[in-house]
Amino acid sequence: MKETEKSLQSIGQKPSGMTKRSFLQSVGMIGGTAAVMTAMQGWDIGFASEADRPPEMSNDGKGKKIIILGAGLAGMVLAYEMGKKGYNTHIIEANDYAGGRCVSARKGSVIEELDGEKQVCNFREGNYVNYGPWRIPAEHRSTIYYAQQMGVPLEVMVNKSGKAYYYYENKEGPFKGVPIRQEYADVDFAGYEAELLAKVADQGALDSLITQEDKEKLLEHLKRSGLIDNKELNYRANRARGYISYPGAATNFGKLSDPYEMADVFSIAQASRHETADHPAVMFQAVGGMDQIALGLKKALKKNQIEYMSEVTDIIQDDNGVEITYTNTKTGKVKTVKGDYVIATMPLGVLAKINTNLSEDFKQALLTTRSNPASKMGVEMNRRFWEQDDMIYGGVNHTDIPECSQLSYPSGNLFGSAHGDTGVILGYYAMGGGAVSVSNLSIKDRVEFAISTGEKFHPGKYRNHFTGEAMCVSWHKMKYALAGWESWSRRGQERAFPVMQKGDKRIFISGNIASPALSGWMAGAIEGAWSTMEVIDKRVAQQA
Amino acid sequence: MKETEKSLQSIGQKPSGMTKRSFLQSVGMIGGTAAVMTAMQGWDIGFASEADRPPEMSNDGKGKKIIILGAGLAGMVLAYEMGKKGYNTHIIEANDYAGGRCVSARKGSVIEELDGEKQVCNFREGNYVNYGPWRIPAEHRSTIYYAQQMGVPLEVMVNKSGKAYYYYENKEGPFKGVPIRQEYADVDFAGYEAELLAKVADQGALDSLITQEDKEKLLEHLKRSGLIDNKELNYRANRARGYISYPGAATNFGKLSDPYEMADVFSIAQASRHETADHPAVMFQAVGGMDQIALGLKKALKKNQIEYMSEVTDIIQDDNGVEITYTNTKTGKVKTVKGDYVIATMPLGVLAKINTNLSEDFKQALLTTRSNPASKMGVEMNRRFWEQDDMIYGGVNHTDIPECSQLSYPSGNLFGSAHGDTGVILGYYAMGGGAVSVSNLSIKDRVEFAISTGEKFHPGKYRNHFTGEAMCVSWHKMKYALAGWESWSRRGQERAFPVMQKGDKRIFISGNIASPALSGWMAGAIEGAWSTMEVIDKRVAQQA
Repeated sequence: MKETEKSLQSIGQKPSGMTKRSFLQSVGMIGGTAAVMTAMQGWDIGFASEADRPPEMSNDGKGKKIIILGAGLAGMVLAYEMGKKGYNTHIIEANDYAGGRCVSARKGSVIEELDGEKQVCNFREGNYVNYGPWRIPAEHRSTIYYAQQMGVPLEVMVNKSGKAYYYYENKEGPFKGVPIRQEYADVDFAGYEAELLAKVADQGALDSLITQEDKEKLLEHLKRSGLIDNKELNYRANRARGYISYPGAATNFGKLSDPYEMADVFSIAQASRHETADHPAVMFQAVGGMDQIALGLKKALKKNQIEYMSEVTDIIQDDNGVEITYTNTKTGKVKTVKGDYVIATMPLGVLAKINTNLSEDFKQALLTTRSNPASKMGVEMNRRFWEQDDMIYGGVNHTDIPECSQLSYPSGNLFGSAHGDTGVILGYYAMGGGAVSVSNLSIKDRVEFAISTGEKFHPGKYRNHFTGEAMCVSWHKMKYALAGWESWSRRGQERAFPVMQKGDKRIFISGNIASPALSGWMAGAIEGAWSTMEVIDKRVAQQA
Repeated sequence: MKETEKSLQSIGQKPSGMTKRSFLQSVGMIGGTAAVMTAMQGWDIGFASEADRPPEMSNDGKGKKIIILGAGLAGMVLAYEMGKKGYNTHIIEANDYAGGRCVSARKGSVIEELDGEKQVCNFREGNYVNYGPWRIPAEHRSTIYYAQQMGVPLEVMVNKSGKAYYYYENKEGPFKGVPIRQEYADVDFAGYEAELLAKVADQGALDSLITQEDKEKLLEHLKRSGLIDNKELNYRANRARGYISYPGAATNFGKLSDPYEMADVFSIAQASRHETADHPAVMFQAVGGMDQIALGLKKALKKNQIEYMSEVTDIIQDDNGVEITYTNTKTGKVKTVKGDYVIATMPLGVLAKINTNLSEDFKQALLTTRSNPASKMGVEMNRRFWEQDDMIYGGVNHTDIPECSQLSYPSGNLFGSAHGDTGVILGYYAMGGGAVSVSNLSIKDRVEFAISTGEKFHPGKYRNHFTGEAMCVSWHKMKYALAGWESWSRRGQERAFPVMQKGDKRIFISGNIASPALSGWMAGAIEGAWSTMEVIDKRVAQQA
């Protein structure tokens, strides 16, 4: 480790209240560009995201009228932040609620897909399912920012429980159709890796790759990991993999579980995966339902700032402004409103159905995006058997069933602490083709699919403890969403995104689509909104 | 995988309400002993601990008088459970509070060690530090049982945050004196392991150890892990290690952090460790302080069932009963009480000071135990800078400083959700020699040590945000504890433990010492109590 790096380490943490940019500027002032680069690449900086608060805007909004289409997170953030800066913001929303896809189903919630099958939620008091976004990584400072601004308490969402399962039924192998505890597979994979590496190190096979000193250190670490025995270097039962029979009082020292065979472990693809930065083991969720973040933003807006049940039919701009025509979906009454700018935050599939005079270039840019199908199901259980009988607290089962690639145990109301011994399991979360096929089933058949899939993990219990109450959604079948989220191809990011980002005169597109790197996340909607309002604010300033 | 194992898999989960023993009996009835063994060793049983509720007792207590010494978890569990079974239970407690070492400090709490330096806690409302037990693994069903019985809500205690640090200052090396993000070190170690293994596999060095088929599967997994590049097989920057600059809106795709050098990573001993079954990444704690579990038990007892400030001086038994002599520490008044049995749950160091007529064999057995020193410190901060600036939510820093082998960030009030933007960091947790040396400092010097140690991780902030309020304890210096916990040597477990366990006529020893495999855990105290009451209950039944 170089001395310069080390001394930078001591200033390698951002002082309170300093943005990353200003911190790096201060490093630059002391040590020049090279020092900045060293600081950025340094041993231990790990800043929070730069985007941990809305951008400073350059001027005041001078009362410019901003019509925002869509009261999802992006639309509400735009109305809220631009409103604070002297813009006159107004939201037109097609649904009869605010939040867009940032929703949770609880008693009384209604979901109605395009084919008209209507579900009314009848979960017990306190139970809910996040059928939109359901997890926040620590690095999504922008989402955390609004939770805190709106006074919405956050709690741990356990994204990885070693006690949850992997499950494969679509390929041959020793575990076909057998749920596998994740910690068994993960630790066994690591253990056999350690065994093989220690043995070849011992045999000298690493000598051309690393120094003798490093080899010795490596061997020492592998031995100290507790996974392999120090003599034969064989992987063996260990306390990371855990017990088949737990230690207790008196002379009960428990019994460690026996590893799977190496060849069997090597058939479990998931065992070699690592948690990623945006999907770490510990994530966060809003207490009581993720929609609390959207509802907090709604409360922060003025009454009547959102006009509901207003389906936009036309967006027409000229040199003086932009005119929106919309129809009240209840009364059929047609209205128009004029603004200086319009920001469309609705999903692009919905925007595509609206008559606009956007330029051809701009329309073409939008066409390079993808709409991603997504299906989710919440099933209510009258006993937390996964906790009580199987010690699974939160966590996600990963499967190769396309219609249920993930099944997640609730992280809220753990132990039934908050409101009794019931809970809602995320019965399936499906993307891509699996999301579409499950959405082609009737609601009844989807529920049956969810329950029979759950039975693979908890035979005799899952169906037995199901209260009969379920709520599901396929976002691509929701009239005002038409997708779980939108994303860009790499080619689209490079060529089309910049066209979209600068807007078409008075018409801007924002939301999750304005954040290609954060597609499908709440942070994508929020930071997309932030980036759009900066662009508009600069435009307005130039016109001054 | 054998077919028998697979079919057992389908019954491999314990039906609701069935004990493990009765489940295995039912498997035995169907398939005989071999089937039981297969079930126990099976792919995916992973039972909850057998001890998930108090033992069934064989008879009723017939009004036998049980004098319990100590109102810690063990003493209160004994009084509560035996009381329900018709025993006449009474607790004598030396302290002026119930809970023993299961305590938390909050506003108004007092800690006074043997040298008489008195601390009164002045944390802000809602803040606390668990200066006794502080984490519950899911497998400790007995602890969870009482939390649930007493209506004490539990929440996640984050025992591993990848954003927390490793820190070495007592050995030479590239990272000496430099805090290292745990996820950087952990992922780098795994990454270089994957690189070396993939390279030697590619070169044929594993051919004598594994089949060609397994080698190919291993290589495929290593490549798919996302840690190494598929061509050169080199470990490289990746999304598990995370970002140095995070992705955001528009064209900000973030920048992955660069791995440390292999040789540097191999100097970090901790990087090769795995979470163990009893210290997994996600553990649990009582909301508002771990003492809530003890207070719940206290509330479940009758008024006056605990006699406080009563220091026992004599335990004398004869053929008809046992007589306890004790002194009120406030009034100096000496009292005696007689019972049919006495259960001493105080720490053995305290018991050793009491006059008893225990047999020499029994006394010798007790002498084989060890008393473990333990020191803890809570420091209150007026801003959650570790969360806001460094994205550390819970987790434990591991160091090679003996006086602070662990420093832990609070898992309660995350994000300041519950009661504002303050929090108490576990400033140090020391065991063994380090616990003793820190306890030889004055309280003021301990606080200074804690703050200057914290500054190593959060320079310029730790001291700055310290409210000045701290609470510390060294358990070996608390008059009625004299140790953090007691434990057995392996030899003591084998020879002396059975002598202790059956009791000496009318005198029994219980608590954490009765659970050699669970030393120092709340589960040890609870299950120790359970095991003692079973022994006594059988004795009483035999005498009927």
